[in-house]
Amino acid sequence: MSGTNSERELLAEGPVIILVEPQMGENIGMVARAMANFGLAELRLVNPRDGWPNDKAQAAASNANHVIEGTRVFATLEEAIADLNFVYATTARERYGYKPVRSPVVAAETLRVKFAAGEGVGILFGRERWGLTNEEVALADEIVTFPVNPAFASLNIAQAVLLMSYEWMKSGMEDLSATAFAANRQRPSTKEQLFGLFDQVEEALESRNYFHPVEKKPKMIDNLRAVFSRQAFTEQEISVLRGVISSLDRFPRKLPRGSRTAAIKEKPSDDSADD
Amino acid sequence: MSGTNSERELLAEGPVIILVEPQMGENIGMVARAMANFGLAELRLVNPRDGWPNDKAQAAASNANHVIEGTRVFATLEEAIADLNFVYATTARERYGYKPVRSPVVAAETLRVKFAAGEGVGILFGRERWGLTNEEVALADEIVTFPVNPAFASLNIAQAVLLMSYEWMKSGMEDLSATAFAANRQRPSTKEQLFGLFDQVEEALESRNYFHPVEKKPKMIDNLRAVFSRQAFTEQEISVLRGVISSLDRFPRKLPRGSRTAAIKEKPSDDSADD
Repeated sequence: MSGTNSERELLAEGPVIILVEPQMGENIGMVARAMANFGLAELRLVNPRDGWPNDKAQAAASNANHVIEGTRVFATLEEAIADLNFVYATTARERYGYKPVRSPVVAAETLRVKFAAGEGVGILFGRERWGLTNEEVALADEIVTFPVNPAFASLNIAQAVLLMSYEWMKSGMEDLSATAFAANRQRPSTKEQLFGLFDQVEEALESRNYFHPVEKKPKMIDNLRAVFSRQAFTEQEISVLRGVISSLDRFPRKLPRGSRTAAIKEKPSDDSADD
Repeated sequence: MSGTNSERELLAEGPVIILVEPQMGENIGMVARAMANFGLAELRLVNPRDGWPNDKAQAAASNANHVIEGTRVFATLEEAIADLNFVYATTARERYGYKPVRSPVVAAETLRVKFAAGEGVGILFGRERWGLTNEEVALADEIVTFPVNPAFASLNIAQAVLLMSYEWMKSGMEDLSATAFAANRQRPSTKEQLFGLFDQVEEALESRNYFHPVEKKPKMIDNLRAVFSRQAFTEQEISVLRGVISSLDRFPRKLPRGSRTAAIKEKPSDDSADD
């Protein structure tokens, strides 16, 4: 089990992935890796072009050894799915027939329900260049197809397996907004803490003649408070902001900000200015 | 726009994908391909190891030329995201901080809303070996992380871009069960058509002494009708089945099925049987 973190749970269950006449060992390896990423483990190959085992597959599997080592090879698709109860065929192009066509989300949910009920389930993926034959699709129960850019629809098999494996993982989640880790929790500030910030800022600004002209002061305070309350600051953020204000407010207040430069730039009183 | 099907709509919009210090040209090409598959078009590279343009990227892009040709290179991440309004950082490992952490589904929905409102949005992906630095993550607004097998969590950047691009595509779908094509529609059968099948089957079987012994006939008819009605056959299926029954029923009825072999196998009347 090298390459896996043995302290963490290794998921290895779910539908069997069946590759029909895969050609490139690299693709088989990337399929194994994608399966391992999302907790699938059982890979079957129908008549792989370069035989099995395959060094290139092993190299591309990026230590998904439990998948590669368990891979089984079959001479025909019929044999490869003989023990299964329900099988999806993946296809990118329209097939004219009567088999139900499902989206990946619906297919994954269906597989999850059947797997949980003890059924053997699988997903068929076709050859790199031309997919599955109609006869092969006919052996499946239903079809699954991916929502892709109509003008650029070619997914390779490793990508297609990745997406189905990802949807399989998601179909087992109670809440699709769940994440493996989360931000550190912060307590929202109380209104009292927020008003403390308002008071501190407004007092510091008042001492520097920020509220000028005086008749605009109420509107300026409105705008200022709107800035400081739109985000619903946390306790910690209020504390950071009060520290910032304190630091800026540490210098002498006797000389209001800008008063010195104002004196320097004062317009000369002679009349030599252009007009 | 070679390699794309010009008769079909080419989707080219959505969030900017930003790769920070990507190393392998092949990965950049596979990223471009994944973006094109799901309708994204704008790729930016921060300080790519092997410079740009890159032949290996071009080769791996599988004709996603509109993405490769529009790719822009920046010296720093700050420059690469300067014109954007909202940016996600992707990360596989826990970051201790206060940035909100979202699932791909939630992140894609958030990007969709902001994009629709005219905001410039982007998603950051880190280096192949070690992802994004904490300083780079700090430049993003929120974090997105993938639900993976805890013991096998390493997604490569092309896979990570594929999943986010796929979720972007899905976030624009009104109905996640929608598919690009569907099975041919079939009309469900009426009860009259179903009863016609019952009558035909039961009459054909009756003439062959299938309902034997007679006291079991009601139960046998029950079982038979249950088999033929559980699936809610379509009109066409009823028609196929009636054809099958007609074909089987074409041979002489005078000799009920099995009566010849029954005669041959008839138990001898002497008492030589073991006991």
